Amino acid sequence: MNRNALGIALTLAALAGLRADEGMWTFDNLPKAQMKAKYGFAPDQAWLDHVRLATVRFPGGTGSFISRDGLVLTNHHVGHGWIERVSDAAHDYVKNGFVAQDRKAEIKVPGLELATLMAMEDVTAAVAKAPGGPREALARLAKEAEARTGLRCEPVSLYQGGESWIYSYKVHKDVRLVMAPEYGIAAFGKDWDNFSFPRHDLDFSLFRVYEDGKPYVPPHHLTFASAGPRYGDLTLVVGHPGRTSRLETLAQMEAYRDALNPARIRALDRTRKALHAFAARSPENARIVSGTLMGLENSYKVFVNETVGLRDKDAMAAVARAEKELREAVAKDPALQASAGPSWDLVAKAMARRAAVAREDVASTFGSALPYAANLLRLEEELALPAAQRGAGYRTEKEIADRKDALRRRMFENLELEREFFLAGARGALEELGPDHPQVKALLDGRTPEAAAQALFASALLKDPAARAKAAESGVKGSADPLVVLARRLQPFNLALRQMREETSAVIAEQGARIARARFQVRGRSVYPDATFTLRLSYGAVETYPANGTLAQPFTTFGGLYDRADAWGPEAENRSWELPERWIKARPRLDMSTRFDFISTNDIIGGNSGSPVVDRKGEVVGLAFDGNIESNAGRYFFDPRVNRCISVDVSAILAALGKVYDAGHLVTEITSK
Amino acid sequence: MNRNALGIALTLAALAGLRADEGMWTFDNLPKAQMKAKYGFAPDQAWLDHVRLATVRFPGGTGSFISRDGLVLTNHHVGHGWIERVSDAAHDYVKNGFVAQDRKAEIKVPGLELATLMAMEDVTAAVAKAPGGPREALARLAKEAEARTGLRCEPVSLYQGGESWIYSYKVHKDVRLVMAPEYGIAAFGKDWDNFSFPRHDLDFSLFRVYEDGKPYVPPHHLTFASAGPRYGDLTLVVGHPGRTSRLETLAQMEAYRDALNPARIRALDRTRKALHAFAARSPENARIVSGTLMGLENSYKVFVNETVGLRDKDAMAAVARAEKELREAVAKDPALQASAGPSWDLVAKAMARRAAVAREDVASTFGSALPYAANLLRLEEELALPAAQRGAGYRTEKEIADRKDALRRRMFENLELEREFFLAGARGALEELGPDHPQVKALLDGRTPEAAAQALFASALLKDPAARAKAAESGVKGSADPLVVLARRLQPFNLALRQMREETSAVIAEQGARIARARFQVRGRSVYPDATFTLRLSYGAVETYPANGTLAQPFTTFGGLYDRADAWGPEAENRSWELPERWIKARPRLDMSTRFDFISTNDIIGGNSGSPVVDRKGEVVGLAFDGNIESNAGRYFFDPRVNRCISVDVSAILAALGKVYDAGHLVTEITSK
Repeated sequence: MNRNALGIALTLAALAGLRADEGMWTFDNLPKAQMKAKYGFAPDQAWLDHVRLATVRFPGGTGSFISRDGLVLTNHHVGHGWIERVSDAAHDYVKNGFVAQDRKAEIKVPGLELATLMAMEDVTAAVAKAPGGPREALARLAKEAEARTGLRCEPVSLYQGGESWIYSYKVHKDVRLVMAPEYGIAAFGKDWDNFSFPRHDLDFSLFRVYEDGKPYVPPHHLTFASAGPRYGDLTLVVGHPGRTSRLETLAQMEAYRDALNPARIRALDRTRKALHAFAARSPENARIVSGTLMGLENSYKVFVNETVGLRDKDAMAAVARAEKELREAVAKDPALQASAGPSWDLVAKAMARRAAVAREDVASTFGSALPYAANLLRLEEELALPAAQRGAGYRTEKEIADRKDALRRRMFENLELEREFFLAGARGALEELGPDHPQVKALLDGRTPEAAAQALFASALLKDPAARAKAAESGVKGSADPLVVLARRLQPFNLALRQMREETSAVIAEQGARIARARFQVRGRSVYPDATFTLRLSYGAVETYPANGTLAQPFTTFGGLYDRADAWGPEAENRSWELPERWIKARPRLDMSTRFDFISTNDIIGGNSGSPVVDRKGEVVGLAFDGNIESNAGRYFFDPRVNRCISVDVSAILAALGKVYDAGHLVTEITSK
Repeated sequence: MNRNALGIALTLAALAGLRADEGMWTFDNLPKAQMKAKYGFAPDQAWLDHVRLATVRFPGGTGSFISRDGLVLTNHHVGHGWIERVSDAAHDYVKNGFVAQDRKAEIKVPGLELATLMAMEDVTAAVAKAPGGPREALARLAKEAEARTGLRCEPVSLYQGGESWIYSYKVHKDVRLVMAPEYGIAAFGKDWDNFSFPRHDLDFSLFRVYEDGKPYVPPHHLTFASAGPRYGDLTLVVGHPGRTSRLETLAQMEAYRDALNPARIRALDRTRKALHAFAARSPENARIVSGTLMGLENSYKVFVNETVGLRDKDAMAAVARAEKELREAVAKDPALQASAGPSWDLVAKAMARRAAVAREDVASTFGSALPYAANLLRLEEELALPAAQRGAGYRTEKEIADRKDALRRRMFENLELEREFFLAGARGALEELGPDHPQVKALLDGRTPEAAAQALFASALLKDPAARAKAAESGVKGSADPLVVLARRLQPFNLALRQMREETSAVIAEQGARIARARFQVRGRSVYPDATFTLRLSYGAVETYPANGTLAQPFTTFGGLYDRADAWGPEAENRSWELPERWIKARPRLDMSTRFDFISTNDIIGGNSGSPVVDRKGEVVGLAFDGNIESNAGRYFFDPRVNRCISVDVSAILAALGKVYDAGHLVTEITSK
């Protein structure tokens, strides 16, 4: 097993010069000098306007116009819920895929709205001058702009309040499904391969925007490059990254790393294990929880890997260094010192308060039954107060009516599943706090978790819709229902935790904004703002990274797809790598060396899903759909050594449309210039 | 990036039932009941005799007879050095591969000897009764057996002395090279992919044993199965695992984990970085160090991953549990308690002594120049003593002559490289011990490492062969050569470290044997002995494991090979995944779904390389060639969750011979029953 290492010198030297480029930059503030120095390219205004106007925002994701007839490209997993919505028992377009053979066959998707960013207005000065709080002022200005322009105008607060903007969107309300591959190829490898690479996912879907019943002709659309990128090529990702916390303080990250995330991970782990056990009891059970498990497993993977990232000493040392520099700069400026000097310590105190009850906090979560009763009690409690003193969401008549309505409609369709959730929570409370903790005593009252569950699931409220409707309407005062009794016993603990959360959140928001303003004054626009689900550009290059004991291959190919499917064979119980029928049949027609997915150093995060990856000409070379495991720490920092964006290569999209889905008409539409 | 997790319940359930089977079992003591219970199969004596007599031992590896005409199958990396030996400037069979088109073209390999285990004799009782030490008694018995049988008879001490055996081998001295694939496909992915999976290595080569100038007809040979194994199939690996330390104490493993391995890893890392820098300076430099770097990188990878394994809390808890049970059993038996009771503490003390000077120890290693001078001084020092009082290797006239000869012949071909080694060592000493440590003061004498190197490499001994020859013959008493001066200054430190090593080794050997005898009395033959480069059988099954954020695919295919080659493309600087010309040309002729490499739960280690993987019929289904990264901890324990053996599938061997190498005659020979 001793191996020859010819060429190692070369390759290590190459690794040292890895291309890696941090930042989710706003379109008004690109690091053009850096880009030019490194890649000999920086976009001009026409380039930026073109890609901005060809990009759309999906609910939770991104897409782009890729034909003059309003064809829109996004990820399958961005379209997933909408594809599901237009499916029915006889037409399972998620499982079987869908191809509209002509425009008439395109299916209108109720409720789906896409938005194009038409204008960005910097109103920082106006907000500063306006009376009242900055948040209210910005909201008012946005409303005024909306009335004036007829566009959807959204307030955008960048740099934790350092800049205020109004982003104006043209909204498209008639959106139709054009094409979706089978779930089995869009998410080949299922949850196992999520966040992994090498990857073989055809994670795309096509929609079309209509206006007045006709295909919409967008003022700008992206054309496909004649081929995907080559190794080392510059790649530009345009999209709407959702949320990052990179400008948070070291104390916040340490609290997440050491107390809050570990507690959350333990809780998620208990729940997922309970649900797996539930699912293993029958195929019907498995079907019932598959959606919930999907979310749980994803969250669990993200939390675990985010925490692994937070434990990286080098990355945390860099965070500490940046904070130290900023604090030193603040200390030298009396005005900044007065406004932001103590902020770091106040945030640290708030985080310490949160960390101190991290176990109590996760030990207070229990599926749906107890929260349902707690919500009944909360409503009763809020209604006892004058409207002005009530909590947010309990103030207007409409809010109260909505709450009652939600409580009335709440269903407990599967009590066995609810019982699993409760048991996981109760056993977790025991594990986290021990039997002598007052919160556990209140919960179990000396009983085992099983006995407590027994009593709880005898409850009329859980079983009887009429009892629930009555409780929602008239309250639960004096109720002897075991669920209400237990919720009442736990109320003081929940209240204390809620107060802790609200108080610490207020401190963190206020002090975080002070720190952000100080940073903005010290470092100005040389930094990019945290992600806010608004349009950003990330630049990078196709690049390997060290993974799995070797170097990750920069691309995968169709050959790799079939390799992975063949690898498991008919004997394996795990069907996650099973190919859809169309792909088995198309095999002889496909060129195995066609590039499928690729990795690049672009800095992206959830919300960027469906983002077009374009080259310097602004032509589409790929479609971003995921990050690798190491990118899970991207909420806190971008580690250039290992953080990678994963995209579908345009070659795979065109080959699939033409040779697997008999959708030559779409290939023609996409490739006609 | 949110993914659906359909099927997770099933797959997790499947993971829980992973087939995994620890043990490198001697042929006289197989866990037949366990095998039968788990796989419905246990070998009978005829089966065992058949596979034993069809297996051969290579220097450092294993092979097997696979035709009635003495054709032998082993790994390419087991044959590598021998293939190199029969190559010359005009015939680079490592780079270009080799196929003998007929028997006449087969190339005799000078010096290569293969050995077949003909008999195993348990002489434990005889050794116990014999006068003198057990080691000497066993050696004497082996010598007697050799004279009696004409076979090569080797003493074998199992269970750290609990059993004494004589293993008798038939030795084959006329061995010829028949076929070798190109290094580029035998070790596809080079050092990068070493210990990784998915893997695409055609790591095999073919030799033939001759007797009296004719192909040898072995009494037993293995036939190839008609196909490789399927997922979940039982796999049996027959071979000569080299060395394990699984019966060492917890204190030993902890000392390696916490002090010895980390210090060694730091030192290896410094040296490999220095060598990479050296190699980066010119292609000629790169060529000079490629062999050294190959070994360094392999050692570095093994040490790092061995240490990662030793840090696994679950695995170490299992070691602690087993030790606690044994110590408790010993404590209950007065005789055992008297003989072995204090042994664990004595071993722990010896390890603590080693760990305390781990930094001094690694800070005393410096390429070749200083050790050369130290050896000169050592020789002088030993010669000053009466022969009986001298250290091992310095006692007989012949030993002394050999030492002098070695010193006389020592060359310093590349002083720039020697200088790099010295600098890495000197900087390391500073890093490990700081400037005020006496050992560092003696080394640097107040100079920088660079200034010390300057003085050292002015040495006549390093540059002048005549000066070295004179020093080897007449000693270096009173020499003012800077190299000798420095070595003399460091002598007290080296002496102290040598004494520490010798004394602690003696304690560990003595007490380790006591513990081993106690374990043998308590647990008898229900455990397998540590590996001793003697014949063993490991049973297991083709099985996935969690890796790289997903599940490892159990097999790879030719499709995956081309995928990986296509993935890098012509732009990448790294050529580790470049295909040999023959494989580029053969692509259209190959069935891409042909299985290439596979993973199984078999428990193997270095020395098993080239082992046949056989099915229950004793037919070859694969050829073991590596373990995954997690198996690097296999020296200390077998972790069933992740430790995997990697083998070439017989389908790949036959397809390659037939369709890539035009070696239909070998396919015919192998497949004729």
